[in-house]
Amino acid sequence: MISKVKNAMSTLVGGIVPHGHHHHHQHGSGAAHNCAADGLPPRFPYTRPEFLELTPELLQYSTEHASRPVIALKRDARLPWRTGYAEVINAGKSMLNEDQASCELLYVKKTTGKQRTSVLLDDSGVRLRNVVICFLQDNTGIPLHFWGVFDGHAGSGAAIMASKLLHRLIRDRLGDVAHLFENPSAAPPICLTKNGSPYQVEAKKGATQDADDQECINDPVAHFHMEKVVSLESLITGIIENAFKQMDDLIEKEKASYSISGGCCALAAVHLMGKLYVANAGDSRAIIVRNNEIIPMSSEFTPETERQRLQYLGFLKPELLGNEFTHIEFPRRIQHKELGKKMLFRDHTMTGWAYKTIVEDDLKFPLIYGEGKKARVMATIGVTRGLGDHDLKVYNSNIHIKPFLSCCPEVKVYELAGHKHGPDDVLIMGTDGLWDVTTDKDVAEAVTSFLSCCDPNDPMRYTLAAQELLMRSRGVLKERGWRLPNERLGSGDDITVFVIPLAGPHPAEAHI
Amino acid sequence: MISKVKNAMSTLVGGIVPHGHHHHHQHGSGAAHNCAADGLPPRFPYTRPEFLELTPELLQYSTEHASRPVIALKRDARLPWRTGYAEVINAGKSMLNEDQASCELLYVKKTTGKQRTSVLLDDSGVRLRNVVICFLQDNTGIPLHFWGVFDGHAGSGAAIMASKLLHRLIRDRLGDVAHLFENPSAAPPICLTKNGSPYQVEAKKGATQDADDQECINDPVAHFHMEKVVSLESLITGIIENAFKQMDDLIEKEKASYSISGGCCALAAVHLMGKLYVANAGDSRAIIVRNNEIIPMSSEFTPETERQRLQYLGFLKPELLGNEFTHIEFPRRIQHKELGKKMLFRDHTMTGWAYKTIVEDDLKFPLIYGEGKKARVMATIGVTRGLGDHDLKVYNSNIHIKPFLSCCPEVKVYELAGHKHGPDDVLIMGTDGLWDVTTDKDVAEAVTSFLSCCDPNDPMRYTLAAQELLMRSRGVLKERGWRLPNERLGSGDDITVFVIPLAGPHPAEAHI
Repeated sequence: MISKVKNAMSTLVGGIVPHGHHHHHQHGSGAAHNCAADGLPPRFPYTRPEFLELTPELLQYSTEHASRPVIALKRDARLPWRTGYAEVINAGKSMLNEDQASCELLYVKKTTGKQRTSVLLDDSGVRLRNVVICFLQDNTGIPLHFWGVFDGHAGSGAAIMASKLLHRLIRDRLGDVAHLFENPSAAPPICLTKNGSPYQVEAKKGATQDADDQECINDPVAHFHMEKVVSLESLITGIIENAFKQMDDLIEKEKASYSISGGCCALAAVHLMGKLYVANAGDSRAIIVRNNEIIPMSSEFTPETERQRLQYLGFLKPELLGNEFTHIEFPRRIQHKELGKKMLFRDHTMTGWAYKTIVEDDLKFPLIYGEGKKARVMATIGVTRGLGDHDLKVYNSNIHIKPFLSCCPEVKVYELAGHKHGPDDVLIMGTDGLWDVTTDKDVAEAVTSFLSCCDPNDPMRYTLAAQELLMRSRGVLKERGWRLPNERLGSGDDITVFVIPLAGPHPAEAHI
Repeated sequence: MISKVKNAMSTLVGGIVPHGHHHHHQHGSGAAHNCAADGLPPRFPYTRPEFLELTPELLQYSTEHASRPVIALKRDARLPWRTGYAEVINAGKSMLNEDQASCELLYVKKTTGKQRTSVLLDDSGVRLRNVVICFLQDNTGIPLHFWGVFDGHAGSGAAIMASKLLHRLIRDRLGDVAHLFENPSAAPPICLTKNGSPYQVEAKKGATQDADDQECINDPVAHFHMEKVVSLESLITGIIENAFKQMDDLIEKEKASYSISGGCCALAAVHLMGKLYVANAGDSRAIIVRNNEIIPMSSEFTPETERQRLQYLGFLKPELLGNEFTHIEFPRRIQHKELGKKMLFRDHTMTGWAYKTIVEDDLKFPLIYGEGKKARVMATIGVTRGLGDHDLKVYNSNIHIKPFLSCCPEVKVYELAGHKHGPDDVLIMGTDGLWDVTTDKDVAEAVTSFLSCCDPNDPMRYTLAAQELLMRSRGVLKERGWRLPNERLGSGDDITVFVIPLAGPHPAEAHI
């Protein structure tokens, strides 16, 4: 994510040497972003995704802004479903690559009563009472595939932490209800007892079944107990939504003991029992390309797309605007001498514009200001959903941005088992660096034409496709910067791409 | 709108005798809806749309619940564009037909400085200082076609008032900016002086143009003045949005002097300078049927579609829930003995469901409860946008519903001039009574097959089509009530239908 935080210099937390100690960087700018100035150790040291298996030398190499080397999955490494992956660092806007990624095969197991209380302590690595309980990971349970891309800003701490833990939180929350998955077509029970077994409200005593049915229509007491039917898909969706919130809470909580810099957009794909759940909080994007058709699997959350939600909050809770900002949007800043004139405006109720007479209050800075990639919330941040950012404040003020940011994803569901997929049908997940300079259509055409020329049995084909997509957005270094073949500017941002075959595991490796 | 307000008996305000005085109806129910118990005269007496030209006898006839006569435009009456219209009263849920409609050809004229201050007083009929200024309506200015359907609940006062005034408010607000319409392709100025002429911020003194351009990129002061370009379409959209708000404010204000019962959903179509603006607040619906294709021109606003907006308000302002309601949704009511158990829930951030441990606060009644047509806000109302309802309270409490209702429409724009339309291409606008029992597809097929059998020159063809659609949703009276041909129940609600030819005025009557 390029220049998402105004005045923010990138912060190197923990150094790029794995397991190294963090350095204090003194910034002359006085910017209000997160840095390790709190003197706390980093929650996780800076690193690249484990599946890249980078040596310290390669890790160093990956940070070269001048050459921007494309880092891809090694030929002998193998991700579930032969998932393809490639990444590249930005052109210099931050010292480190603030994107992160994860790809995991996990197993959802019924949580027992005892585990239920301790499992978070284990998997998230939170140490309470100085006890860390370890469970052995074995391959029993319901398989869950996870892919995540995390686009950090104002430091890489939140992105790294989310890439390490979000999939575990999802798995653990699913474990709590795994005993309900035995019959996937049955609706989950509305109510559970404390130990997790279904709980039924007793039928009214002394009434026959027929009388009860009749009663339901006329008797307000019976009506009182009418139930909505909730699908298993809705339950899994809700669990993923809440896992994002839990992840955000965890970052906030652990900031008491660790340095966890910045915030991150989070885009996650979860495959469970034949369905693909794509959860997005931020401006990363996922599309399915199937038989030359494009199916968008996410929407972007930016100051422009979420203007009305943010203005509504500012309108209902003006104290959050700190007497510095107005929730009303104007097409440009207003000068003092324009008081009494009429200016176009729009508020949280409007998609169009109308004129209003300018009053003193309208001279405040607009909550949402700027257009396109330059649109900002309170002149500070260019995305409106994500994890972290708990300390983020408006420059030189005590106004917190976080109440306007949402950690809640939008979840879209794709019936993977309901379609027949060829080897060239893929889910593409990428950070905004990929999409800023390349349209959906161009990405889809590039991946389809690339894959159609590739041996369907080549285990590297999806990684090569990811590299191809990445190169199209990065461009090549010319005298006037990174340029695309059409001479337009390439993306100077960090770029991360997954290309995931929807046909699932290759027959030769059906176990993953 | 059927049974939109719990425990609400319909209130007969003003009687059905035009210009008659209102009666006091004493209800044993003690329901908290609006009635004329305030002792004030009605703002407008009960009536049907003027273009129907009903005699007092026909007005009486139109209220017969037993026979539910279809009231349609008379053969010799003529609406702009040969618009077709038909309506029918409900099957007995309220004494009067709480739907209203309007169809008008107006002319937008530049408002002069003097008019600008007085025009609202005139056209909206508000009497201030006991002065009513009358303007002569002539046929100069930019033609504006208006169609509105207003689906009232808990009385017909708000629906009648909106049907009389909303189009005038829109015209008057457009008049304020009519001088900007002279070049429709030019963007409206960002800023206007008090007298309405464009106002430009002065260029910085002493700088050449080139230097200024260069400056824009680097100089924060120049950047400060960058302007968003706003289209004329956005301006007209914003004006329509604000006219709805003004209409709602006017109802509230005039309730000090008049009895204006209930509230209403409002669906309005505005044709201006080659574009059709369809503004919807409530659960009425508009679709375009063009060459057998269906183009939805509205979305419905109901407790189910707006759940998250309402829950968000309840979450941010819990005082609006009066300690009686919880913003969290559960799939059924919770019993006291279920405290400590886990139940499925969803809040304003979720589209899925997850389990939560039940605490005392969860025993409150859910803000949103029920499914489909039975879904309610605070157990009271089944729509979430519309005009009026300022006095509406939760039964037997002092909790106001209005803060949860929005009077702001969603506006969709259709480029009328950008398409070639045949005589069977139409915009269909209907209250929910039409759509509850008939799908978009069935409505589209019925209107297309009906019109294709009609003489294209028959001036009655669109009214006959409206009648046909209405009959399909009302059904016929059998021993077991109003039944459709397939024996399913017909709509027992008031039904109102406009069928509007998109080809515009017939060549023989091009002046309207």
